This record gives sequence, structure tokens and C-alpha cells, in this order.
Amino acid sequence: MYREELKVLDCTIRDGGLINNYQFKDDLVKAVYRAACDSGVDIIELGKKLTVSDEYTREKYGRWNFCDDDDLRMIVDSHDSEYRPLVAVMFDVGRVDIASLRPADQTPIDMIRTACYVADIDKGIDLAKRSKDLGYLTTINIMACSAAIETDLVEALGQVNEADEIDYLYLVDSYGAFYSEQVTAYLNLYKKYAPDKELGFHAHNNQQLAFSNTQQAIIEGVNLLDATVNGIGRGAGNCNLELLLNFLKNPKFDVRPVYDAIQNHFVPLREEIEWGFNDIYGISGHLNQHPREAMKFRADEKIRDNCYDFLVNSMRLEP
Amino acid sequence: MYREELKVLDCTIRDGGLINNYQFKDDLVKAVYRAACDSGVDIIELGKKLTVSDEYTREKYGRWNFCDDDDLRMIVDSHDSEYRPLVAVMFDVGRVDIASLRPADQTPIDMIRTACYVADIDKGIDLAKRSKDLGYLTTINIMACSAAIETDLVEALGQVNEADEIDYLYLVDSYGAFYSEQVTAYLNLYKKYAPDKELGFHAHNNQQLAFSNTQQAIIEGVNLLDATVNGIGRGAGNCNLELLLNFLKNPKFDVRPVYDAIQNHFVPLREEIEWGFNDIYGISGHLNQHPREAMKFRADEKIRDNCYDFLVNSMRLEP
Repeated sequence: MYREELKVLDCTIRDGGLINNYQFKDDLVKAVYRAACDSGVDIIELGKKLTVSDEYTREKYGRWNFCDDDDLRMIVDSHDSEYRPLVAVMFDVGRVDIASLRPADQTPIDMIRTACYVADIDKGIDLAKRSKDLGYLTTINIMACSAAIETDLVEALGQVNEADEIDYLYLVDSYGAFYSEQVTAYLNLYKKYAPDKELGFHAHNNQQLAFSNTQQAIIEGVNLLDATVNGIGRGAGNCNLELLLNFLKNPKFDVRPVYDAIQNHFVPLREEIEWGFNDIYGISGHLNQHPREAMKFRADEKIRDNCYDFLVNSMRLEP
Repeated sequence: MYREELKVLDCTIRDGGLINNYQFKDDLVKAVYRAACDSGVDIIELGKKLTVSDEYTREKYGRWNFCDDDDLRMIVDSHDSEYRPLVAVMFDVGRVDIASLRPADQTPIDMIRTACYVADIDKGIDLAKRSKDLGYLTTINIMACSAAIETDLVEALGQVNEADEIDYLYLVDSYGAFYSEQVTAYLNLYKKYAPDKELGFHAHNNQQLAFSNTQQAIIEGVNLLDATVNGIGRGAGNCNLELLLNFLKNPKFDVRPVYDAIQNHFVPLREEIEWGFNDIYGISGHLNQHPREAMKFRADEKIRDNCYDFLVNSMRLEP
């Protein structure tokens, strides 16, 4: 697939950090940044930009939950590259101090992605508008829309469409519940009710469909695609960046630096933390459930592979 | 997806046996048969039907490479079930003694699937015809068509179309190289040059696309779908039966017995043998290579995760 407008956003550190409370070694973050530069990825999201508090400390929650300018500069300055991807961070509605955000031209950040549920769309749009006022590229990532009531979602899409300050609107398969036909159906809604917005897509791999659903999103006209190195991400993880770059024919991309990062940094990381498809996440995705129950189940060594038990409990049937 | 004509063929034992020389414990084969009965699978393929020789012994190659009637009866008789799937076995061109095959009504076998490369299509069709003469349902599974010259493939499709003795014609993604657009393109060829044949599809999961490509085949009108319990199969394995049954809405299917078999038999088996997606198979699939190089690479403990090395060697570039 080749389309000049296609852009790839690497959210390895931001989504991967959900597994380990953003406790990545600096060397790994630098390796991911280097891979993004050398492979021609368009945008790299290096973490969340939340507010430090007595409860949310940098020590406990990791520096990539907060993305101070100095931390970001340490990464960006670590690799000498002619080509550089834009740097993105993520806002979570309700955990952000927008008043302390400085203008874009004074920070290493180019794009702020605001994640919110349909119920919080007004707060999300407000954050996006205020980010735009400070000079940032902006996105609204509507989470868990597979669990939203359609009339609420439609209303939210209309509001996003009215907000000129929002550059991209994301369809997010938070629960890994979509088949390709749902990708098409939701994108048809998005295109109908937010026709002025450029669209993005963020998959989860619960049913081994993150990569294929991302291809379906491309077919449906989406031009901003999320992926992560080796598919790292919460639960079953995301669309594998290396598979996606193999698929895309745009000459600006080179997959080799991504495999270099996998071989040298992610193979060792796989010994420490788990991500990717397994039976439990497959069931959770099929049932359109929040992944928290599946993650809790996987965390219990004694039962983590008891997929039949998980299925019948999830269906609230007696085994 | 619901379509009354859709049939599912479980080839767990036949394709899984390629990993371990068909050295499955009887209990596992019985559990797979039980799951096929109780989940409503239409057809179960219990192995290959090759000829024993001094070189190919039952001890070394496992009983499911030969599928004697007594072995099959031992499995079929192990589970008391009102509903029973048809029993299939596979012929490999050149390793079969068709003269010793008895009529279908004297064996537990209902269907003989003949696997052949395009170059061997005449031999394959001959085996299928002779199987049909003995009363069996028949299929021709054209292997590795992603590596065939299109004019040769087209000629073979025409020959299959002319043979009334062939019940099903299979598109097989032997190298796990297809994206959904290739599934569509090849099926268009199949439908154009073999318009009288009912079609089957057999995927491999090199690029995490076995399940999604099987869905694509359904969309394109294929009615016979191969899948295996937990996706077991050579290399990256096949389409996961449990994911497929979740997807299909036909009321005849019940996924729970499949998860039961996974929890009790395949979770332990995963400790002994490896299958499923990994970086090496992903590269092999993308490059449309026979999986033998990838399998050899995976067998070497010292290098098995060196995906960057595998990629650049496969591309014949210097690292």
C-alpha cells in the first residue's frame, strides 16, 4: 500500500509504559527514538504529560508519565540525525495542568494528543483548543468507542468536527474488539459526522487483528496510523510497527532500524515484561470487555492460562 | 458473520504434526476430536495418509502420518457423541500408495485432501479422481501459489475446474505472505478460472494475518475454512479455531469445548513445542519465503531471536 499522505506514529514508549509504569531504561527510549529517526517514522510519542503530585511521583510512575522538557531533550539530543520525527505526548483528561504548559516553540514537543472517553469530550476538546492556542498540533483520541452509546458518540463527533483547533480525530479500538467490518462501520460514522477532520486509527491486538485492522483503516482512508515496536502495549499490545512498515510501500520508510531495536532492546525486555496476544486477551477482545479483568487474570501465575475458566466466568455461566 | 454454507475444517493434528513428526499423545488427539464434536466443527483432519516404508516408519514418523483405520477408529470410538464431524486425511503427491486405499464405506475416512504444488497438478488430480472413484469427498490444495508463475497457476485452475471428481479447490497461503488484498486477488483468479468449484482457504500466521485473511476469504465467498486449535501448525501456525468460531455466528458452533481443550492439553503442549507468530516468521512471510529457513533459524538457540540479522541475511544485504 502506498499513499503519499500516510503518516505513521510510533507510540511505543507511551503505550508500552502502561505495562511497567513507565520504568524504561534510558537506553531503550533512546533506541526507540533512534529507530524512529532512521526508519522514517513521522511522529514519535514519548509518553504522557501528566501533573506530578504527592501521589503521582516521578519515582513511582516513571519520568515518561510526565515528559519534562529536560527528559525529552535528553532523548532527542542523544541521536544525531538529519531527519527527525515530530515529538508527541499524551494528555489524559483530568490529570493535566494545562496552565503550566508553555508555548510550543519553547519546548521539544510538537503534538499533544488528548485521550478522553465520550463522556469527557467537552473537557478533551477544551484541552485540545488550549494546546492549539499554544502552537501545538492536536488530536482527540476517543477511547473505548466500542462501548459507547452511538447517539453519544455521534454527538461527540459533531463537536470535534466544529473545533477547528483539532487537527486529527482518532478511532481507538481500546478493547481490541473490532473485526474489519467494525473498523469500516465506525469509520463511516466518523466520516459522516466529522467530515472535516483528518482521521487516525489506534488498534489493540486482542484477537490478532491490530495489524489487519490498521490495514482496513488505510483502505477506508485513514492517514495517521499508530503502531509500536514489536507491538508492545497494554494487554495484547498494538499494531507491530515493523509489520506495518513492511506493508507500506512509501519509500520514506526503512524497516531495518526497527528490527535492530527489537533484536538489541526488545528481545531482552520480553524477558522482563509480557505483552502480546494470548488466549485470555482474545476472549476479552471478543467479549468487548475493558482489558482490566484479563490483565488481572494474567497476573495470577496459578490461573493465567486457564482460558476456559476465564471464558465461562466472563460469560457468567457455570463451567 | 453468518452464512449457512460456511463449513469449518479442523486440521489441528495434520498441520500441528508437522512440528513434532506426529508424535502426539493419544489423549491429545482424543481431546481434539472431542472438541471438534462438541463445538460443531464440520470436518476434522486427523493426519496424513502416507505409505510406510523402511525409511518412513510409524515409530519415527508417528502414526498420524499414516492414519491406519485402526488408529482412526481408536480416536472416533473414544468419544460418545450424537454429532460427529466428517473425518479427513491428507495425501501428499508422490508419497501415497493409492492402490492400497479401500472404498470409503469400509474405512472411517470421509474426505481425502490432496496437497500438491502447481507443477504436480496432474498427479494431484489423478489422486483425487481415484479417491472419488472409491467414494471419498475430495479436495485439491494447491500449495505455495504465492510462488507460482501465474500462467501455470491459471492452467492448473482450469484443469481442476474440468475434473468433476474434485469437490473443493483450496487457496493455500503456504508462506504466510498474503495481505487481504492478495487473498482477494488470488480468489478472483480462482473464481475466474475454476468457476464451478466450491472454494476452501488455508492460512498461515506469519504476519498475524491468518485469522483476518480467513475473514477476507469468507467475504470473498469461500465456504470451507481451515483452522487449528490454538493456531498450532508449522512455523507461525494457522488460523486459530477458537478465534474463528468466535467470529462466526452460525448457531451450530460452540467455542467452549475448544477452550477446554486448550486449557487442558495445549497449554501443557506449549511447554514442549513452539508454534505461532514471532519476528522471524514475520520477516519470512513478508519476503514470501518458504518457512524452512525461518524454522532452521528458530531452531538455533543462540540466534533464534536475532531478527535484524535474519532480515538482512534474507535480503542478501550486508548488516
